[in-house]
Amino acid sequence: MSALEDLLTCLRFPSVSTDSKHRSDVRACAEWLKSKLSGMGLTAELHETPGHPILVAKNRHLPGRRTVLLYGHYDVQPAEPLNEWLSPAFEPTLRDGRIYCRGATDNKGQLIAHVSGLAETLSHEGDLPVNLTILFEGEEEIGSPNLKPFLEAHREELACDVVAISDTGMVGEGIGTFTYGLRGIACMEVKVHGPSIDLHSGIFGGAVANPVTMAARLVASLHDEEGRVAIPGFYDGVRDLQPWERSSWADLGDGDAETLSLTGSPALFGEPGYTERERRWARPTAEVNGIGGGYQGEGSKTVIAREAFFKLSFRLVPDQDPARILDLAEAYLRAKAPPSVRLEIKRGHTGMAYLMDPHSPLGKAAQRALETTFPGGKIALIREGGSIPIVQAFKDVLKADTLLLGLALPDCQAHAPNENFPVANLEAGIRLNQALLRELAAS
Amino acid sequence: MSALEDLLTCLRFPSVSTDSKHRSDVRACAEWLKSKLSGMGLTAELHETPGHPILVAKNRHLPGRRTVLLYGHYDVQPAEPLNEWLSPAFEPTLRDGRIYCRGATDNKGQLIAHVSGLAETLSHEGDLPVNLTILFEGEEEIGSPNLKPFLEAHREELACDVVAISDTGMVGEGIGTFTYGLRGIACMEVKVHGPSIDLHSGIFGGAVANPVTMAARLVASLHDEEGRVAIPGFYDGVRDLQPWERSSWADLGDGDAETLSLTGSPALFGEPGYTERERRWARPTAEVNGIGGGYQGEGSKTVIAREAFFKLSFRLVPDQDPARILDLAEAYLRAKAPPSVRLEIKRGHTGMAYLMDPHSPLGKAAQRALETTFPGGKIALIREGGSIPIVQAFKDVLKADTLLLGLALPDCQAHAPNENFPVANLEAGIRLNQALLRELAAS
Repeated sequence: MSALEDLLTCLRFPSVSTDSKHRSDVRACAEWLKSKLSGMGLTAELHETPGHPILVAKNRHLPGRRTVLLYGHYDVQPAEPLNEWLSPAFEPTLRDGRIYCRGATDNKGQLIAHVSGLAETLSHEGDLPVNLTILFEGEEEIGSPNLKPFLEAHREELACDVVAISDTGMVGEGIGTFTYGLRGIACMEVKVHGPSIDLHSGIFGGAVANPVTMAARLVASLHDEEGRVAIPGFYDGVRDLQPWERSSWADLGDGDAETLSLTGSPALFGEPGYTERERRWARPTAEVNGIGGGYQGEGSKTVIAREAFFKLSFRLVPDQDPARILDLAEAYLRAKAPPSVRLEIKRGHTGMAYLMDPHSPLGKAAQRALETTFPGGKIALIREGGSIPIVQAFKDVLKADTLLLGLALPDCQAHAPNENFPVANLEAGIRLNQALLRELAAS
Repeated sequence: MSALEDLLTCLRFPSVSTDSKHRSDVRACAEWLKSKLSGMGLTAELHETPGHPILVAKNRHLPGRRTVLLYGHYDVQPAEPLNEWLSPAFEPTLRDGRIYCRGATDNKGQLIAHVSGLAETLSHEGDLPVNLTILFEGEEEIGSPNLKPFLEAHREELACDVVAISDTGMVGEGIGTFTYGLRGIACMEVKVHGPSIDLHSGIFGGAVANPVTMAARLVASLHDEEGRVAIPGFYDGVRDLQPWERSSWADLGDGDAETLSLTGSPALFGEPGYTERERRWARPTAEVNGIGGGYQGEGSKTVIAREAFFKLSFRLVPDQDPARILDLAEAYLRAKAPPSVRLEIKRGHTGMAYLMDPHSPLGKAAQRALETTFPGGKIALIREGGSIPIVQAFKDVLKADTLLLGLALPDCQAHAPNENFPVANLEAGIRLNQALLRELAAS
């Protein structure tokens, strides 16, 4: 099966966008994709950016047809911690019908499924039923810093009726899933500076503020005891869940048990008044993604570190404004920090939350494509907790809604060791690509 | 001056105990000291240990005289970073009346001062006024792992009335300083386990406890807002400062300014109701020496880590019991941790605080010796915030108090580049050795 071979080839590029030592690997992956698409008869071009290149490819656009923009990303998350992988992170390995590799699900498996669907159609029919524009980028895992400027600079070339993306999850194996909402994001890194040098904790302990303690206090202050975010104004403008959403999500079965089993957490924990799914899909959060300071080695070293850091990300929902959330967080942290330490705050990437109406004509076409791809079952209408900031960029710049038709299973281990993607989902993705273009052409 | 020549010779041995490539240098230094002491008429012997040798030397012990054990260490800290030394780290260099070399103050300058004092007395008087036992070890800078077993194995051979050590600080140039107390220590490492794998903070954020957040909450819970340790029972049994201590320490001048300048901290911070010196010398602390969890690299990674850790050390004062403090801390942390995480607690090394009465007969003898050595000034009676575990070992095994009569200046750069020792302090140390043995003989 050439789709599988293509996927294995694509996975072997360690295209880690955040790590400058993988810069040439990211480019090599883009070059390979470009020649793949060219070989299928599409016109394909790599566009340089200040970061990693953007790949655009098209069939010949004819008047009177729907124009569909298909988005994907060829960059991946770092693979660390490497020692927790059962097989090498960048050597795709087949076990029990699944392909294990960094990027297998996120996003190379889903991207190659679409490419393979297009290749089949092109080879059988000679053309596609729609005007297609492919847009594959290499910076999704670092917040797509160059995508929005690119959209703005190529508005006309990229004009479309709708965007399609497979980079979201399925609620379960074989259940066609339409994601009509995503959380937004806002990132921030905080350094807590104290003494100008590391200090002996015996000689000086008790008389100066310990930057690690102060960092811990700031992190602890982000939530109340029960799990609500404690930053004043954080929940202003948060849209309430619709009754149909709450009941339709409740119908999906026991989310608590599933999340406990997927995460291995000893117990669930979160904002009171909401179910586990509602917390993950429709409620905003403040999470600390990393903390560090002082001695990291074995045993003890009696030191007061001169600095500590922590990294935060806020997941946002409509209608929270990411920039305002970072303003509120920074003001809150600065007010909490005592004069005995100095904060250095660096803002990271941001993205608005996204919400579309799944009962619109385009939404219904997507649902029919899913019914064809996964026959006999009910289609799940969900939101997701992750962020795809580009979906908002497509809305802002191209004025187009995005159909999120994901193929990631709940246990796909995206961003974690042993990321995997079933061969069955690669096959389903090929069917989905073909059904979706047909439905959109007809709708 | 032969004392200076001896010190320069001793300093040229790069006796770095932690570094196995200096193993033979450590031994060569011990051998040189042994022959030096033998040449002075003492019986000297090197005792092998699993690590570096211990040197024991004695004059002929006569009944009816006080027995004094003089402790010192001939090993030194590593000299790195070498490029920050103004003259080579192991080539002693005289500048402005100070000898610059690794080990100049810690501890070879002070050790050779005592040896030279003994040599003068022996050459002028033919004997010493006391029964003297010299105990010089080569593993102080790596925590003296073999000293306590050695004391236990040689209890009778090392029996003494009092121990004398010059390995602590002077509050200022020319100010005789008697350290009569040290803080104890108790170490602990805590791991906070949450999910069984690292999680995507978008997909799962809001529904499970974040181990980094929980670690931060636990660290934050160690102190109240103002800096008191919040563990119930932590201050039970802490001995109050004596009025004479508070007033005598206040007389030492502005500790705040000195500590701000030495540490470079933006501001002081500590337990209310105590001065900066009182906090460092006589109040117990809880310090976090290291914390880690989640993404440590550049930029952001939107992960919920499956675990986090932090390392604690408690500095203790009389009459806190280190084992009880660890019990209290463990119970407190376990009670604070929610059921959504699991704690793994590992206990580290402990050591009792040390306190002797500087107004006891032995203490008064030490003060008189300092008055003779540094005539015309007031003697400073201080405690120190660090821990010297061997002092407790002498107390436990030999049942002897220790007189800590240090000659290290505040700017001696012990453990740092450009360590130095004034020639004047070498001369003072010779006088101190002679006055101390006379006073102890007479007391």
